[in-house]
Amino acid sequence: MTGSSRLDAIVGRIDPLDRAAMAAAADRLDRLTKPPGSLGRLEELAIRLAGITGRPDAATRPRTIVVATADHGVAARGVSAYPPDVTRQMVANFLAGGAAISVLARRLEAGLVIVDAGVEGLAPAIRPAPWPGQAAGAGVGVEFRSTGRGHGTADLSAGPAMTRVEALAAVEAGLDLAAELAGRGTALIGLGEMGIGNTTAAAALTAALCGAQPDAVTGPGTGLDEAARRRKVATVERALAVNRPDPADPIGVLAALGGLEIAVLVGVLLGGAAAHLPVVLDGFITGSAALVAAALAPGVAARLIASHRSAEPGHAVQLDRLGLRPLLDLELRLGEGTGAALAFGLLDAAVSVRDEMATFESAGVASRPAP
Amino acid sequence: MTGSSRLDAIVGRIDPLDRAAMAAAADRLDRLTKPPGSLGRLEELAIRLAGITGRPDAATRPRTIVVATADHGVAARGVSAYPPDVTRQMVANFLAGGAAISVLARRLEAGLVIVDAGVEGLAPAIRPAPWPGQAAGAGVGVEFRSTGRGHGTADLSAGPAMTRVEALAAVEAGLDLAAELAGRGTALIGLGEMGIGNTTAAAALTAALCGAQPDAVTGPGTGLDEAARRRKVATVERALAVNRPDPADPIGVLAALGGLEIAVLVGVLLGGAAAHLPVVLDGFITGSAALVAAALAPGVAARLIASHRSAEPGHAVQLDRLGLRPLLDLELRLGEGTGAALAFGLLDAAVSVRDEMATFESAGVASRPAP
Repeated sequence: MTGSSRLDAIVGRIDPLDRAAMAAAADRLDRLTKPPGSLGRLEELAIRLAGITGRPDAATRPRTIVVATADHGVAARGVSAYPPDVTRQMVANFLAGGAAISVLARRLEAGLVIVDAGVEGLAPAIRPAPWPGQAAGAGVGVEFRSTGRGHGTADLSAGPAMTRVEALAAVEAGLDLAAELAGRGTALIGLGEMGIGNTTAAAALTAALCGAQPDAVTGPGTGLDEAARRRKVATVERALAVNRPDPADPIGVLAALGGLEIAVLVGVLLGGAAAHLPVVLDGFITGSAALVAAALAPGVAARLIASHRSAEPGHAVQLDRLGLRPLLDLELRLGEGTGAALAFGLLDAAVSVRDEMATFESAGVASRPAP
Repeated sequence: MTGSSRLDAIVGRIDPLDRAAMAAAADRLDRLTKPPGSLGRLEELAIRLAGITGRPDAATRPRTIVVATADHGVAARGVSAYPPDVTRQMVANFLAGGAAISVLARRLEAGLVIVDAGVEGLAPAIRPAPWPGQAAGAGVGVEFRSTGRGHGTADLSAGPAMTRVEALAAVEAGLDLAAELAGRGTALIGLGEMGIGNTTAAAALTAALCGAQPDAVTGPGTGLDEAARRRKVATVERALAVNRPDPADPIGVLAALGGLEIAVLVGVLLGGAAAHLPVVLDGFITGSAALVAAALAPGVAARLIASHRSAEPGHAVQLDRLGLRPLLDLELRLGEGTGAALAFGLLDAAVSVRDEMATFESAGVASRPAP
């Protein structure tokens, strides 16, 4: 019982993977002109998409990357290599189309939804610049949503980052967004985020939910040196000591330690899973949202796709806990959904192979071992 | 001295990476709106492309995947799970557009050149079916080349697979193809292959050139069980005992053990490297061609991009020897160039980020650590 009957209902709707659809996809793959299983994890992906969606012919388009953004009170503690203002500046960069995720979303033909979950100082008139083709109503583009909060969390190392009511409101904003995306026929959701200070929140969540030592899950983030990283570890330790989060109450843990963007992502994760939409994780921050979601609804993990293993050390701890194997290991540590976007290319490859290859029968290729 | 003055001249033209172009690419990347280095191996790729091509703005299009194919006399020894005829059948499938590499090349917008380096029984009138758009002269498509040999190698476990003259002729066919591709403005070459029995040839080449034990570099190929794999190991051991290949004479090693498609790939590798074209490797067979090329011209390895780590155990031994780190680890074991095609997507992402992201200055984002 989370304190939100709507959230409880969504959690109750997350069901096991569709084994019949998975078997149908596997059967199709085995009839194609290649040794069985020889496309390795591409085949695994095609089967997993079938299980998540209930469709052996699951599509990967249209798709959207949700980039949730928020300020963090803990950023005032010097836990990041960058000043807190950069969050607001980067929201403007996302909307103008100049960030790494802007470039990769365009290349991978994914829409972007930038969510202001609590960023201070955004101009009221802020709006996205259309992408090429978007203005004419063709192609994908960038959209903007705001929860209208206008400021970030309190310092988690001095007390709870949010109240329970605030945390649930942000989660429900994520549920709303997932429902909107499902309602307009989205086939695939990727997660991304931006928030100076949010690796500290994610480290605290990971320590609390995985029972890990803060030192083992607190990394350099955007570029701290070792002395600064040690101060960040001490901040995480203080956050845990002050808040005493109870892993049996995931919403309580989220309110105490989490960021507002992480809470929105928890809602997107759960809403996406309940709607049978595959959700592609990015790095350490989206992983912390997945830990909260899986603590609420253990069945959610099987409905997620881990795009990459981040350079942030706590990410591997999260993936182990979730039972997920990342597709890529490219030493990315940017966030924004960049790893999720790259994984879309592999998902596209998996469904193209499934749909477009010849079968042994149609191509007249011998499918039997040599006598 | 290889025995071919043309080949010797190409080997002499393989020069070190262009450090100035690499520095210019790195400088550009550090001005973009992201923490320095936070895009990990994507940034490394953009820098490597600059070093190989001498251009900080190296392109990834137009690009071509060369799929070299040939029969192997050793296939009669039962070293594959599939009958030798499958090579010919798969050439027809490549030309008809139904193979995995056909699908992935179309998806990644890469042209395909299918090379018959020695396949028996191909109909004289065999020709590729145009891809959508190709007939009209637009877009990429599939082309066919034949060396006109009409049959494969002799059984390497009973004596040399080829004469030195035959091996050099196949290498020179690869040099011709690389020159043709360079001449028509190709920006990027991927390598692929097909040939029932060719993991046996590749294992023998790897053992000979890396000084590895046959058992450590001989895997299940397209799907042998352990008993069959052990017989394959014995075949490789016999090939080495019968031929006594001398690693100081790479063309001699290639002639004794290699396949005709591997020899063509050696030529494409060396010709591409001499022309400053990035060459993307696929799996274990293309890796064996890279070992031969690097034995002739050590500078070639720095000009290669390792797309993925194959499930075939000897592949890691090859990559270690070449000093290459694979981009992907997706348990692929199909060949054909499928891993190379997938890596094209990552190369595209690297150059898109390099070219399309905003700079800190242009976006008004703070680039300095917090005070």
